[in-house]
Amino acid sequence: MKASIKDKSVSLTDRELLIDEITILSTPFETLPVDLSKPELQINNATLFDLRPITLRHFKQKSIFKIQTMIVRAFREYFEAHNFVEIRTPKIVKEGAEGGANIFSLEYFGEKAYLTQSPQFYKEYMVGVYQRVFEVAPVFRAEKHNTSRHINEYISMDIEVGPIKNFQEIMQFEVGFLKHMVSKLKEECCYELQVLNVHLPLIEDIPALKFYEAKEILNKKYGIEGLEEDDLSPEEEVKLCEYIKDQTGSEFVFVTHYPKTKRPFYAKDSEENNLETESFDLLFRGVEITTGGQRIHHYEEILKKLEWKKLDADTFSFFTSLHKYGVIPHGGFGLGLERLTQKIIGLGNIKEASLFPRDITRLSP
Amino acid sequence: MKASIKDKSVSLTDRELLIDEITILSTPFETLPVDLSKPELQINNATLFDLRPITLRHFKQKSIFKIQTMIVRAFREYFEAHNFVEIRTPKIVKEGAEGGANIFSLEYFGEKAYLTQSPQFYKEYMVGVYQRVFEVAPVFRAEKHNTSRHINEYISMDIEVGPIKNFQEIMQFEVGFLKHMVSKLKEECCYELQVLNVHLPLIEDIPALKFYEAKEILNKKYGIEGLEEDDLSPEEEVKLCEYIKDQTGSEFVFVTHYPKTKRPFYAKDSEENNLETESFDLLFRGVEITTGGQRIHHYEEILKKLEWKKLDADTFSFFTSLHKYGVIPHGGFGLGLERLTQKIIGLGNIKEASLFPRDITRLSP
Repeated sequence: MKASIKDKSVSLTDRELLIDEITILSTPFETLPVDLSKPELQINNATLFDLRPITLRHFKQKSIFKIQTMIVRAFREYFEAHNFVEIRTPKIVKEGAEGGANIFSLEYFGEKAYLTQSPQFYKEYMVGVYQRVFEVAPVFRAEKHNTSRHINEYISMDIEVGPIKNFQEIMQFEVGFLKHMVSKLKEECCYELQVLNVHLPLIEDIPALKFYEAKEILNKKYGIEGLEEDDLSPEEEVKLCEYIKDQTGSEFVFVTHYPKTKRPFYAKDSEENNLETESFDLLFRGVEITTGGQRIHHYEEILKKLEWKKLDADTFSFFTSLHKYGVIPHGGFGLGLERLTQKIIGLGNIKEASLFPRDITRLSP
Repeated sequence: MKASIKDKSVSLTDRELLIDEITILSTPFETLPVDLSKPELQINNATLFDLRPITLRHFKQKSIFKIQTMIVRAFREYFEAHNFVEIRTPKIVKEGAEGGANIFSLEYFGEKAYLTQSPQFYKEYMVGVYQRVFEVAPVFRAEKHNTSRHINEYISMDIEVGPIKNFQEIMQFEVGFLKHMVSKLKEECCYELQVLNVHLPLIEDIPALKFYEAKEILNKKYGIEGLEEDDLSPEEEVKLCEYIKDQTGSEFVFVTHYPKTKRPFYAKDSEENNLETESFDLLFRGVEITTGGQRIHHYEEILKKLEWKKLDADTFSFFTSLHKYGVIPHGGFGLGLERLTQKIIGLGNIKEASLFPRDITRLSP
């Protein structure tokens, strides 16, 4: 009998196998600590991650990461088809792109170094080289939150592109990728989508609204004050997604024109209102999965912005040499792979979307 | 006139352009510190790397990394076509796979952690999950050497596969990939190969010889004693490659059965001679570009080997739980992307094959 396991239409339970010979390749020393044959593992997350080398063998766990791998493959396919060049930028860096305290430091041959929070500076350098670039690589955040939304090492899928006329062009690249991803998953992950009972989102146009409009809706419709004037809280993100789904049917929503106070110094200010930036977040099923926008490309503008942000221009002189010697108008986005995987599949915790998650209490296996 | 820049057969110098309008997208604040229009940059490596965001714009530099990107693409294509699943394993780890002093450490929420030297343990875990896995990701080595062969952060292209009968199967996967890489480069990088004057290697079968045979040849033919009895020195690697090219025409050579003293504890000992391991290195144009081999898959065998290596079994209990609960016979290899790129193109220094190289004195840009 030659029923291929890959032929998903053939159920192995419908077949009879006649076995002539069995060769035992390896024997366990101890029996497994969990029953992998059950339809559900029925263990808590601590055990799930403690026994990761074993629990990943469960068919549902395997399915999660097959889907994740296909998301990455769809990302590369889409951007390669649009003439983006894949880059590999350093993870040990001298300066963090985001600044702040959420950064791991280490000693590097007597010098203080950091683990990258984002390939931001490097992908901007590379726009000057290839115009269109992408990277899929780990980033590190020393955030002390231990929530279902946070992990301390994750995979960032980044693009950066120029020349562009506006940041809406970048949003269109993201919409294009998401559509490709959904059709790729339908094509390649039929079995995995079924066993995990995944409801793929329908993606037509993704609605977009301005940050202050989002705040107004949240305030008027839900009476939410929000913790911060210049950012959306987790609760606000959930409510906004509910509202948009209700109004338009879309499970995605772009929030644009974030306040300048909340965006990093390299974000381009809007011409109409220079308290706003030419930026966006993409929310999906209640959480932010992407941050993007147009960047400053003029030298004097970036120096002015550094000053406004009270940052030391010397510290960033390597980065601003890009602007000094000239770079095309450009922008890009970063998309968190684990959050996207979590939300596509409907996992309760982002850690379930990481093969070997890292959080403030977990460093192994 | 519609001459596409991409049409490599059309020389732009043969054409006349009639320009109706020019839009200036961006103006530099200062003129470039190097002349990018010259056929050669004619600067030393220190300047090349100091001005990396600019010097990478030179057509020869761009060509190096187009080729590198295509090597990675060929790697993924080949292994995806052979049903390998791409994985993403953590870079912040509790234990180094190679041990020794060549490891960067950092504080991780009050605990001591390390930057991964190799995805070894994790890819072995994943063999138990998907049988065939690969990863292309950064690794970190705190080596204090500042030679043309060393960088402190590089990209490792790794595979791990089971069930296997012997380590020669792994070597065959590598040969298959290298052949695919060469034809892919011929197809996709015609222009880049030409401007860099690259001589691609001819790959038929790659000759293999045992470590002790290599030592004998080096000793008898070249009178080289070697610094270490259980390893090949850089000089020995160069001479051995010369000898093999002379004898067989091949620019690649596998050296197999490395002494157990030199290989990590997870390497499987040979049955015929248990001072040797079921392992190999691949040398190319004078340097080692790959280390691989079959791994121990029995629990008692790995415990015995840890003891023989005078390593603490408790430290590695997470890893050996893999063997305790059972894993198929397996093995794999790690291939350094920058060394391969350097040697394919014929660059004098490995740092030229890294977009933003990291060495003991260089942490930026």
